[in-house]
Amino acid sequence: MNPEEFRAAAHELVDWIADYRLRVDDLPVRSQVKPGEVHSQLQTPPPETPQSFSDLMSDLENVIVPGLTHVQSANNFAWFPANSSLSSVLGDFASTGLGALGITWQSAPALTEVEELVTEWLRELTGLTPEWKGAIHDGASTAALVALLIAREKASNLSLAGAGLQGESAPLIVYSSPQAHSSVAKATLLAGFGQSNLRMVEVDETNFSMKPAALRAEIEKDIALGNKPAAIVVAIGTTGTTAIDPIKESVALGKEFGIWVHVDAAMAGSAMLLPECAPMFDGINEADSISWNPHKWLGTSLDCALLYVRDTELMIRVLSTNPSYLKSGVDGEVTQLKDWGLPLGRRFRALKLWFHLRLDGAEAIRGRLRRDLANAQWLGKQVTASEDWELVAPVSLQTVCVRHVPKAIAGDWQAIDLHTQKWAEAVNATGKAFITPSLLQGHWMVRVSIGVLGTEREHVANVWNLMQEAAQISD
Amino acid sequence: MNPEEFRAAAHELVDWIADYRLRVDDLPVRSQVKPGEVHSQLQTPPPETPQSFSDLMSDLENVIVPGLTHVQSANNFAWFPANSSLSSVLGDFASTGLGALGITWQSAPALTEVEELVTEWLRELTGLTPEWKGAIHDGASTAALVALLIAREKASNLSLAGAGLQGESAPLIVYSSPQAHSSVAKATLLAGFGQSNLRMVEVDETNFSMKPAALRAEIEKDIALGNKPAAIVVAIGTTGTTAIDPIKESVALGKEFGIWVHVDAAMAGSAMLLPECAPMFDGINEADSISWNPHKWLGTSLDCALLYVRDTELMIRVLSTNPSYLKSGVDGEVTQLKDWGLPLGRRFRALKLWFHLRLDGAEAIRGRLRRDLANAQWLGKQVTASEDWELVAPVSLQTVCVRHVPKAIAGDWQAIDLHTQKWAEAVNATGKAFITPSLLQGHWMVRVSIGVLGTEREHVANVWNLMQEAAQISD
Repeated sequence: MNPEEFRAAAHELVDWIADYRLRVDDLPVRSQVKPGEVHSQLQTPPPETPQSFSDLMSDLENVIVPGLTHVQSANNFAWFPANSSLSSVLGDFASTGLGALGITWQSAPALTEVEELVTEWLRELTGLTPEWKGAIHDGASTAALVALLIAREKASNLSLAGAGLQGESAPLIVYSSPQAHSSVAKATLLAGFGQSNLRMVEVDETNFSMKPAALRAEIEKDIALGNKPAAIVVAIGTTGTTAIDPIKESVALGKEFGIWVHVDAAMAGSAMLLPECAPMFDGINEADSISWNPHKWLGTSLDCALLYVRDTELMIRVLSTNPSYLKSGVDGEVTQLKDWGLPLGRRFRALKLWFHLRLDGAEAIRGRLRRDLANAQWLGKQVTASEDWELVAPVSLQTVCVRHVPKAIAGDWQAIDLHTQKWAEAVNATGKAFITPSLLQGHWMVRVSIGVLGTEREHVANVWNLMQEAAQISD
Repeated sequence: MNPEEFRAAAHELVDWIADYRLRVDDLPVRSQVKPGEVHSQLQTPPPETPQSFSDLMSDLENVIVPGLTHVQSANNFAWFPANSSLSSVLGDFASTGLGALGITWQSAPALTEVEELVTEWLRELTGLTPEWKGAIHDGASTAALVALLIAREKASNLSLAGAGLQGESAPLIVYSSPQAHSSVAKATLLAGFGQSNLRMVEVDETNFSMKPAALRAEIEKDIALGNKPAAIVVAIGTTGTTAIDPIKESVALGKEFGIWVHVDAAMAGSAMLLPECAPMFDGINEADSISWNPHKWLGTSLDCALLYVRDTELMIRVLSTNPSYLKSGVDGEVTQLKDWGLPLGRRFRALKLWFHLRLDGAEAIRGRLRRDLANAQWLGKQVTASEDWELVAPVSLQTVCVRHVPKAIAGDWQAIDLHTQKWAEAVNATGKAFITPSLLQGHWMVRVSIGVLGTEREHVANVWNLMQEAAQISD
């Protein structure tokens, strides 16, 4: 395809995308296709000769769109806000169009330096001190893995340069919360620590926050056993209930015992832009690594996760490669982002953050985040004020966790679990909204995650009406 | 930014991108900026209020473009072809525009099923047997890490479910070639094996291919020491000289000793589309994992790397997560790509492969790959026929590795190394072409990596002229 053919097709595609965004709120939120349906509709032998762009557009419209759950819909309250702001979409278009290759500074100086600039901007906007340096990763799972690898190497005095983790005598231990994201356990296992060396620290029964006293007790028990505490993963805004683990107490324990403290604020990190949310991040500047995802609530197009580290020298010793074909005359003077993460090559992902922040501005972003927090408080109040409805966790951010417990089944957990799944499915089956049932300490509840770019109070009121209707009918 | 503002801006951006692609061959290939220059030109406090799109476009044109090394230029012969075909760019635009979220099948059924479809297409086009299943990763570094994690867990009987790698008694060993990509050593270290458990197997002195007898000797030595061979990484098309390690002998050793065999064909994998290249992949269907990058020579926009595995059940046991909030009614019937790699969430990257293959067709892609192979053979012949010039490795694919050794310095390695770096830098400083100096067994040579989409015979002839001129002047 030559540039003129591209120009014509891309103009058509841009109009189609703008139109998609205009109508997305009217589409059924959860995809209604059955397993295998998309695949079988598109199944052909590998294409040998060029097909027309109009054939592709037709499949895009008739097969792909119905095959998607529309997370950009204002009626989407599932999982977490996975916002893709149109300003950041433009930045990503520029990135893909340029086709830059980030393997060393030399291969694309602007790619490296814009990534430095935007991570500095977000450092300032989130109140982190200047010693923090950030880079873009694909997601918080990868960021957690990288953080735990650095922690592992710190605790083992860079065992990777010797016999590796298998050469360690005292088992290295990771501490986290049973409410933490599943990626923490995954990263712990992939980093080689092993399931039996992952401590799930007890949480508070009402706010689901890790108990500092329990954390201390676990650490002291391990030390008494001859084990070596290596990392504490603190979750700010857990996946289930957006619980807030205590950073301040965790970093104090980290300092006392020489343990790496990683803060996982994948979704909640955006709240660091709001001064009024500062208390939940109190102590964060004393942590060792922080990850959060602009591709969630903030609204930078997927994939765009940040990992900030203070001891970049240690990080680079763990992650660096320096083969001869990547050497150039300026190596000492520049940042080599290949030594800041897992992949060697990277897209120019900084452009979408740069476009997003410049075209939208921080003021407007903060306004939107505040709107979402207010909507969550409003919904929380409706729930509390309504008979048979209850909040199962404090509304600490933009997620509202609820149960509907009619008197007839009060106290009967089996019946409540069944009822919860039923009415949630009834809401989702309408296609008019999408909410996520989730297990909380063994029982089902429903998460209403507010924060899609287009979600206004009216959409929250709509989903609340749908929930009330569904809960009545499913009785 | 609303959809109508996006529409207007995106049309402007599309024209700018088409124009960039039309003029890219005329730009200095290697960026001429100095370290920090881009950063300081763009340095401002974080934007509080919205800036105009025209200001961004102006910075894109005046700061970003000069700050890039133009890997899409037909005069780029550096590193490896990092082709971004305009057909795949359209697919990536569609992906970003839709803003889909791949965390489970349910979150975007079409994302999962198109990824199944395109990886099947490429499996067929590359002659892999039906038991291979593929998924898209960000790069071959990550793919190698995932492969080594699976190998580690196979060799340790899923130690991650117990005490982890630190609970193993016999050290697990990885075998690779000193010519393999640096990512293999990085993955080995990050997976926790440790540098002292990585064996760099001796290579042939003329074709730089791993010696099967040396590999067997290393394995037997380790077994005699009580160590446990865990993985062999076979490189097809090494980074330096595109050397071809012996797959057939490696998989035979893998079977004999129960060792996981990973084939890293990051750049060269595209050659699997050509029946005439089948001999270099002989035995590949007996390997355990294969990675190659459509984002290199094939031309699918970065980032798009493939990892194929036969034992997907084992892979999923190593990589799965299944928290309650991701459960849905169809889990047993569908593929959950979150359990096939490191990140939980993924972009709809399959769309760019789907657009690329459908809009270009396999026939045209094969024709282009053959053109590049023929150009490399042509350049190889020029080099061989020219006084004082030599090929330092066989031209097995599209990369030509050369030295210029004037009689005055013949045998004087210090002088040759200096001369090599000098004339290569002289070529690169012209801006008219870009080639990469690289160390081969301790001495500098120059890699001319042919295969950018727009690179025709005339561009290869041009770089050859520039090389000859530079080598004379630098004498």
